[in-house]
Amino acid sequence: MAERLTPEERKRRIVAATRSMIEESGPADVTLRSVARRCGMSAPGVKHHFPSMTDLFTAVLEQWNNDEVAAVERIVAEYGDDLTLPDLADSLVRHFAGMKEVTSNFDLLEAYAMAPDHPAHEAYQQFSIRPLPITWHLVVRDYENPEAVLRMLSLVVDGLRFRWLHDPKNVDHWGDWMAVRDTLFSSFTPKSGDPRNRDRPDQ
Amino acid sequence: MAERLTPEERKRRIVAATRSMIEESGPADVTLRSVARRCGMSAPGVKHHFPSMTDLFTAVLEQWNNDEVAAVERIVAEYGDDLTLPDLADSLVRHFAGMKEVTSNFDLLEAYAMAPDHPAHEAYQQFSIRPLPITWHLVVRDYENPEAVLRMLSLVVDGLRFRWLHDPKNVDHWGDWMAVRDTLFSSFTPKSGDPRNRDRPDQ
Repeated sequence: MAERLTPEERKRRIVAATRSMIEESGPADVTLRSVARRCGMSAPGVKHHFPSMTDLFTAVLEQWNNDEVAAVERIVAEYGDDLTLPDLADSLVRHFAGMKEVTSNFDLLEAYAMAPDHPAHEAYQQFSIRPLPITWHLVVRDYENPEAVLRMLSLVVDGLRFRWLHDPKNVDHWGDWMAVRDTLFSSFTPKSGDPRNRDRPDQ
Repeated sequence: MAERLTPEERKRRIVAATRSMIEESGPADVTLRSVARRCGMSAPGVKHHFPSMTDLFTAVLEQWNNDEVAAVERIVAEYGDDLTLPDLADSLVRHFAGMKEVTSNFDLLEAYAMAPDHPAHEAYQQFSIRPLPITWHLVVRDYENPEAVLRMLSLVVDGLRFRWLHDPKNVDHWGDWMAVRDTLFSSFTPKSGDPRNRDRPDQ
């Protein structure tokens, strides 16, 4: 029998249920009908709160995105002013690699959402491909030509994500990152006067 | 009325029709039924030659891939021994940017094919992400750490393709490439003794 819940609490539970379904078994079977079943609701009941699957996927991805921001905040808190760009990148890859199953299932959702008619397509347009403010701060603080550094870093990360999306179930996130990270960071010119400069001859 | 054709010629025409449909208006409406209609055949008639849409997409992508190889061969013939890795990359981007509409529609097909249950998924697994032999030759000839150079180049190209796939209709292939190519190539160490080394101090 349906509990009496505030609309906010009801929405929160629908989002949580949808997210759990994606995390446990990927996006393929996430439909209005299956979400309703999982919530013990009718399809029109779910629709009352989320008129379209686009609305629902957007709410789930907003939450997923907020969790990523929270993960970054924990990394920033852990390292303090010692945090460097390589630390941040390593920690984020470690974060996602550490929950491989969930990451793979969200990668699978993003793969499906590449199709312009998928209900999560718009949400990914909105949340994907957007540098974090802390990334920009570290790049400007530590490197020459910050725009070029950020552009290269973003492209390499997108290149990795592109490969991971091709075959989300058979991915070694950490190994793939390790194979490229030293080459990548050594191609950036540290700001002169920066202590991280010590290994490189002046040019 | 159906013409009398050899099975090879019939297959060739089905592949050509399918390819034209993708090139003209993207992959969304390419189905067994629409292909059959375009060829003036019945759906079972098409199925006789291509038992599944996977077989048909594979044949189309094999042809698309062969055309790319032919484009590379023309570039190699044009430059001869003067060909460098940046020349090859520039020429290939120019090639695809020059047929923007077609490239966008094939990018759209690849976007759809990211979903593991799309009939073109397997074909892209097979043809995507594979360096050309000439690329490897140029990298080994001209750069230190060829594996690292090739890995970085491939990731940056995949990163660009990932972005292009997100919004195939609103892409500036050439502009996006220009924004990163100088930073990319200047991050590679030319082989010492190579004439292309002249702009860089010895390290």
